[in-house]
Amino acid sequence: MSEPSAKEKIEVLGKDIVKSIKGGKSPKFVTLARTRSNIQYDPRIGYLKLGKAKEERDFINVGQSKRFMQTIAIAAKCHKFVKENLHTTIRGLFYQLKYSLGEDVDENIFNEQAESNPLIEDLEVNLGTTREYLNLNANRKGVLAGNMKVLDNFGDEKVVIDCAKQGRSGWAIPSDVDNDIKFVEIKAKYVIVVEKDALWQRLNEDGFWKKENAILITPQGQAARGTRRLIRKLADEGLPIYVFTDSDAWGWYIYWTIKTGSINLAYIGGAVATPEARFIGVTMSDLDKYEFLNKLTMNASEVDLKRAQEMLNYEWIKNSKPWVVELERMIKSKKKLEQDALQGPRLTFVGDYIRDKIKNKDFLP
Amino acid sequence: MSEPSAKEKIEVLGKDIVKSIKGGKSPKFVTLARTRSNIQYDPRIGYLKLGKAKEERDFINVGQSKRFMQTIAIAAKCHKFVKENLHTTIRGLFYQLKYSLGEDVDENIFNEQAESNPLIEDLEVNLGTTREYLNLNANRKGVLAGNMKVLDNFGDEKVVIDCAKQGRSGWAIPSDVDNDIKFVEIKAKYVIVVEKDALWQRLNEDGFWKKENAILITPQGQAARGTRRLIRKLADEGLPIYVFTDSDAWGWYIYWTIKTGSINLAYIGGAVATPEARFIGVTMSDLDKYEFLNKLTMNASEVDLKRAQEMLNYEWIKNSKPWVVELERMIKSKKKLEQDALQGPRLTFVGDYIRDKIKNKDFLP
Repeated sequence: MSEPSAKEKIEVLGKDIVKSIKGGKSPKFVTLARTRSNIQYDPRIGYLKLGKAKEERDFINVGQSKRFMQTIAIAAKCHKFVKENLHTTIRGLFYQLKYSLGEDVDENIFNEQAESNPLIEDLEVNLGTTREYLNLNANRKGVLAGNMKVLDNFGDEKVVIDCAKQGRSGWAIPSDVDNDIKFVEIKAKYVIVVEKDALWQRLNEDGFWKKENAILITPQGQAARGTRRLIRKLADEGLPIYVFTDSDAWGWYIYWTIKTGSINLAYIGGAVATPEARFIGVTMSDLDKYEFLNKLTMNASEVDLKRAQEMLNYEWIKNSKPWVVELERMIKSKKKLEQDALQGPRLTFVGDYIRDKIKNKDFLP
Repeated sequence: MSEPSAKEKIEVLGKDIVKSIKGGKSPKFVTLARTRSNIQYDPRIGYLKLGKAKEERDFINVGQSKRFMQTIAIAAKCHKFVKENLHTTIRGLFYQLKYSLGEDVDENIFNEQAESNPLIEDLEVNLGTTREYLNLNANRKGVLAGNMKVLDNFGDEKVVIDCAKQGRSGWAIPSDVDNDIKFVEIKAKYVIVVEKDALWQRLNEDGFWKKENAILITPQGQAARGTRRLIRKLADEGLPIYVFTDSDAWGWYIYWTIKTGSINLAYIGGAVATPEARFIGVTMSDLDKYEFLNKLTMNASEVDLKRAQEMLNYEWIKNSKPWVVELERMIKSKKKLEQDALQGPRLTFVGDYIRDKIKNKDFLP
């Protein structure tokens, strides 16, 4: 995603500031506004991204000068982390900044992490990079199994992970899948993303990914940055991406986040969104296809119904007929359906369900 | 943990019921009460376990007959899962039970999972086994790296996982570490359990476990059943267990759960508690040893203070002088300390901290 390197970009930022000062001008820091009004869904590309509205931070502006200083302090720390080739989290960065100012200074650069977090995002946008390149790990979550091999350039060691030989555990997807992670070999033909780890384990035990030559991923709920990015990269390799979640508000949210990105990560939209993804189920219309499921519905919660109503207003949903049908059916029936319910008749039914859906191209856009 | 097998135990249970009926007696199901009053801390063994109070379920008692039937339905399903050699979760079991009754019967065996969950625990106690032996997976969480090899008997495949070759990811600890997981080789000398995955990643990147020949585990917050059981099994192999958490209510709770077990799992106490575990930090007394930490404390929350006060009343804490000192110091100062703060001076300080603590045997009981 990035060339020149993040380190070089930070150095350019620093040199520009020095140049401004030497030229007798107030140094400025420019980033794109990450306010809701500057986040757009572009139907041609299919994901959420930032618009063009800018935000400036001027050193000699009293209202902006502290945040200017804070942003530069963050840039300096990240430069150090990249140079040392050591990683930490945004919390670790916060503590380094809190520690940094000498004992004799009463004022902290930051008192709360809530202050430093948005400035890290500002820096990512300004530099045209992501925190992964600034050696800041995000939370990781998610597991993968399938016929693929990954090279993990981990410090002095180069480890090749064979994702077909991870037993019941699977390969734990790292927080950064760009810098030091390379695909060595991908033999699988498509990717299936399963909301719940429990169902992933079920399918893994059944050898689903072996029989189907698929890559089996679970984000373990909402997908973390690393998992979203990995799905994007697998799509870039030409693999179809199918998502399998509950038929409820949370399940849909997981799907749409993978597909169109999210408000929070709109500033790195293209890197983590996979508009090619398709929704495999479970759907409300499964109730017509699989009679037994009617006995296994749950009552939709208030949250489910409210979210379903909201989603009907989303630009990227309201123009999609099959989704409108799904959502309206849930709102009308006040019922929802979990992917776990597919285990009702027999535990191995889950795999058959997915196979049928893919064979019949029976998915939602 | 179990011989005869869980399958055989279920069969004995079934045969006893048939025998009662044939003998003209009402069949009974006996388990131990899992009520608070029947949960005891035994200082000689150092963990929470059930007392001797019994609970009986009698088939011809109107108030008990439904629960009797439900319990037997669960036993029958588990027997099937074990026979098929397939695993599911307690949610998957719930759906199978919901599905089971024919279309012509209006009444469900279970309407809510909240009904079936406690009966599974009853069955575990009655049979003297754990749900892992009934092929019911619990949630899994937790990651491990270190000089050890594990054999995963996974269906047709036998996979040897070298926990020293898992790169930045580590080995994802399975939900069941008993039935089909065997230690092949353990070269490491001790175990360090790190509350936060972020710190685990930090230490893993620094090669801490290589330099120290340790096993590095993170439960990723509160430890799941599988991770607690794995820690117990590593202690059984003679490895010292050190726990490294935040100095706050949540961190202490994680430690005490690993060490003495928990109320919820008192019914399998000995299998998941590790009384040998020692607390390495961070502690409030670290503020005296590491001057810089004083700048990096956080305000304790109301929850922290309330929990600290409660813990002072726990039998297993109130008699432990060093813990009383810790807790009282937090209550008085209203400050807490996170393990992340150790990254303040430099990212690699975390490892030095642990090394020093272990070298000086500077830990809490």
